[in-house]
Amino acid sequence: MSKGEVIVVGLGPGSADTVTPQAGAALRRATDVVGYGPYLARVPAVEGQTRHGSDNRVELERARHALELAQSGKTVAVVSSGDAGVFAMASTVFEALEGARGKDYGDVDVSVVPGISAMLAAAARTGAPLGHDFCVISLSDNLKPWTRIVQRLEAAASADFVIALYNPTSKERPTQLNKAFDIIRKHRDPITPVIFATAVTRPDEKIETVPLKDANSVEADMRTIVIIGSSATRMIERDGRSAYVYTPRYDMESVR
Amino acid sequence: MSKGEVIVVGLGPGSADTVTPQAGAALRRATDVVGYGPYLARVPAVEGQTRHGSDNRVELERARHALELAQSGKTVAVVSSGDAGVFAMASTVFEALEGARGKDYGDVDVSVVPGISAMLAAAARTGAPLGHDFCVISLSDNLKPWTRIVQRLEAAASADFVIALYNPTSKERPTQLNKAFDIIRKHRDPITPVIFATAVTRPDEKIETVPLKDANSVEADMRTIVIIGSSATRMIERDGRSAYVYTPRYDMESVR
Repeated sequence: MSKGEVIVVGLGPGSADTVTPQAGAALRRATDVVGYGPYLARVPAVEGQTRHGSDNRVELERARHALELAQSGKTVAVVSSGDAGVFAMASTVFEALEGARGKDYGDVDVSVVPGISAMLAAAARTGAPLGHDFCVISLSDNLKPWTRIVQRLEAAASADFVIALYNPTSKERPTQLNKAFDIIRKHRDPITPVIFATAVTRPDEKIETVPLKDANSVEADMRTIVIIGSSATRMIERDGRSAYVYTPRYDMESVR
Repeated sequence: MSKGEVIVVGLGPGSADTVTPQAGAALRRATDVVGYGPYLARVPAVEGQTRHGSDNRVELERARHALELAQSGKTVAVVSSGDAGVFAMASTVFEALEGARGKDYGDVDVSVVPGISAMLAAAARTGAPLGHDFCVISLSDNLKPWTRIVQRLEAAASADFVIALYNPTSKERPTQLNKAFDIIRKHRDPITPVIFATAVTRPDEKIETVPLKDANSVEADMRTIVIIGSSATRMIERDGRSAYVYTPRYDMESVR
């Protein structure tokens, strides 16, 4: 029996032209593909390849299934949207690998193929808001306490980082994004640009930029990345089109 | 005369199989390519296309040159390594565009094509260290005061973010990385994993993981990304190979 392996593959934000050749090669080489249904649907068909779709709420189960398949000699691609290493399946696969030290996943090789993350795609579509020091925070408190999220928002806002928020809202967590805006408003100018980038690069892409004073969670859903500018972030207005948003390389205070 | 445009293109960390199809298409469509010499050398030859190489220290000049070419009707690709929007040319192009409002760059369209950033590539090569909340900080004080960098390091370390450092060291700034480690040591366990990822995906790639207590700037050069784990970051040892490093989705304190 050949030695199996797991390759965790980032599919990019959605459009096929953001999938790297390295990711494409891994997907063609796989005997089995494991992932959340809508992500599997993005993987081009390969003859003889087996698909294992699952619901979005069973990450650890999915990771264990992939490791078991690899243990039986399969070459298993585990697919994530965006970059697999940013709030996605790569961590879960390593968690399953470590948690199962008692079992024998020992000779299963795990590798990760990076992808264009949602925040990089969102930033590119609006200009260069992540052009200087930034923090990336998941607002989901499914697996960490809300007090920890508040601590990180306070730290990021007070040290004038640009802030990118993943998992900003869901049906179960409708109030947290507005609480986050309230925390950030204590530290930032009311006209600081806030970007709501939803379904970036997909047919239903929607991008809105509003001043922090008007930022409201109704603009966001589960597929939204929210980017809040630092004190240095600037807008360049355009005729008849949305403004560019960018954060310069220089620090405003060192220039004034 | 046709209307010109500037497309800022992220070439990924180095190997050709990390260049997205979207980036490849933009490079083939360009009449002119502008960039730092070693990055230009990565762009496949296109007949009739003009290359404009430059030194690495003249970003703003290079951006203005690209906008001028576009103003004269050219389709200009400005190339960066990694992602063009993270400590790279995209911000500089928007800075030039805004700064020149008095001149007439008015109808030059600027767009950005994202790339696999060095930090995402470095993370993928080692496991999933950026699997949970993280901060990204440039240690260069060329354009911002060192006091601001210290403030951000303190904030990131005290709020238990994973920390990714760009521009960790250079001949002109040999001491700053060790000062950064000293700041982070005040907040983190001595055995916290620190990754030095140099020239990721290139033939001379070198990746070292050491405990924070032993972290030293001699491991880094200009091409290195340094990633310092949070309190939750874990290592999985492997026989005869470097350990995996990953940050779980859950927060340790919420599990204990």
